[in-house]
Amino acid sequence: MSATVLSGKELAAAVRADVAERTARLVAEGRPPRLVVVTATDDDASAWYVRSIVRASANVGLVGDVVDLGADAAPEAISARLAELGADPGVHAIMLQTPLPGSTALEEMASSIPFEKDVDGANPLSLGRLASGLPAFAPATAEAVVALLDHHRVGLEGAEVAVVGRSNVVGKPLAHLLLDRNATVTVCHSRSKDLASVTARADVVVAAVGRAGLITTEHVRPGAIVIDVGTNPTADGGLVGDVDASVAARARAVTPVPGGVGPVTTALLLRHAIEAAEHS
Amino acid sequence: MSATVLSGKELAAAVRADVAERTARLVAEGRPPRLVVVTATDDDASAWYVRSIVRASANVGLVGDVVDLGADAAPEAISARLAELGADPGVHAIMLQTPLPGSTALEEMASSIPFEKDVDGANPLSLGRLASGLPAFAPATAEAVVALLDHHRVGLEGAEVAVVGRSNVVGKPLAHLLLDRNATVTVCHSRSKDLASVTARADVVVAAVGRAGLITTEHVRPGAIVIDVGTNPTADGGLVGDVDASVAARARAVTPVPGGVGPVTTALLLRHAIEAAEHS
Repeated sequence: MSATVLSGKELAAAVRADVAERTARLVAEGRPPRLVVVTATDDDASAWYVRSIVRASANVGLVGDVVDLGADAAPEAISARLAELGADPGVHAIMLQTPLPGSTALEEMASSIPFEKDVDGANPLSLGRLASGLPAFAPATAEAVVALLDHHRVGLEGAEVAVVGRSNVVGKPLAHLLLDRNATVTVCHSRSKDLASVTARADVVVAAVGRAGLITTEHVRPGAIVIDVGTNPTADGGLVGDVDASVAARARAVTPVPGGVGPVTTALLLRHAIEAAEHS
Repeated sequence: MSATVLSGKELAAAVRADVAERTARLVAEGRPPRLVVVTATDDDASAWYVRSIVRASANVGLVGDVVDLGADAAPEAISARLAELGADPGVHAIMLQTPLPGSTALEEMASSIPFEKDVDGANPLSLGRLASGLPAFAPATAEAVVALLDHHRVGLEGAEVAVVGRSNVVGKPLAHLLLDRNATVTVCHSRSKDLASVTARADVVVAAVGRAGLITTEHVRPGAIVIDVGTNPTADGGLVGDVDASVAARARAVTPVPGGVGPVTTALLLRHAIEAAEHS
């Protein structure tokens, strides 16, 4: 017996269709929604991802612009540009792409993005508002996990969820989204003592570390739901998640990589952009 | 055999002594540190707590002022006053006392406190910065839990900690402080399925719900450390925590109420105020 595959493609398509409709409405009203992605890197994977967002934006009728500040941009220049875009009423949604030059934290620079336009939840204020129960955009990846669980009718109320990984873009905001849904949430990480014994207790395991093969059968109890947020490049140019293929023999359901959390993430980013434009 | 009592009095006294020394230094430099507590309530318990903070401030040489806006103050007026105090270079530390009038959330109003002066971590930006690893003040109660564990040499690295309660002022910020210390953190709450089975797995149990007697022996495994954040008034004018007295027979150590987390909280609030003044 093998686990059900929790595809993200159907949900992503439904979200995109909704965004396309809402975008058309704003365009008809003479208020074309505009997303700006700010980059400051020569990184190839990043450039690929940014192109895919611009393409996805165009497909739903959204204007997706890239502002490339160059790999040697000063942190002050990046912050200043974000603030400028933040003040521009013609820009509704802003995303700051990583990696960034030097040692300045993403969070420090992203503090210049007004939270109303912070569609990937990179400003610490967005995380704080999210955690506090005030309106804010969650990082699209974290929200995609919950959206995918909802779409496949996995109940979260009172469920035990183990989140593996404590990043500011996935693990931490996801913990707050799950708490809001009344799940009992455990956040594990590289320093957790006996990770497998902790995750094997959970009804739902979310792997968000970025290490291929991290989650194996011993980490998952029979019948659990496993969400794989990892996207690890393989030597042959492919992509694998954090969850080992063997887990499918034990879990009730597993998300595929690619085709699981990824497409939902991009679709939700676009939904955030249209929401920001509607509220502007 | 009965559990060790993890008193907070010794630690609180040490913190206050340090704050008094640092305050004297600033006063000698002609920069007297000033904490302002903003209130807008007729609540007796609140008034008692505010007086105790003012008294504690005076005892370490800090100026502790109360700005009472009255129980019918409009949210806009409260926010405006907080912003005004935030812009005043003579005010180094600001605390917004609950309860507040009407239905406006504390977090919404506290957004007007600059995070550099937000000594009780009430602004969602403070929580977001804390969660993101950027400098910020944690709510004093949440920080007191970790300080007390450190003081009594309870190791957190890799330990399993169950936090019962998911409030914005204790449970949530505490989860982030514990993650920073490399603990594996589970946040439980009123909707958790089988709370006792979750907490009984933990090395450290933190009760922060506000319900007398919530945590009983079945919630605690033999040898666990139990931190009681609850402060529930009793009919005879006393104070009890969330942890039932019976737990002392099973746990390795328990904090008392009163005399545990409480005095450390007040002392850390004063330390935040002097830190804010030093950085101004």
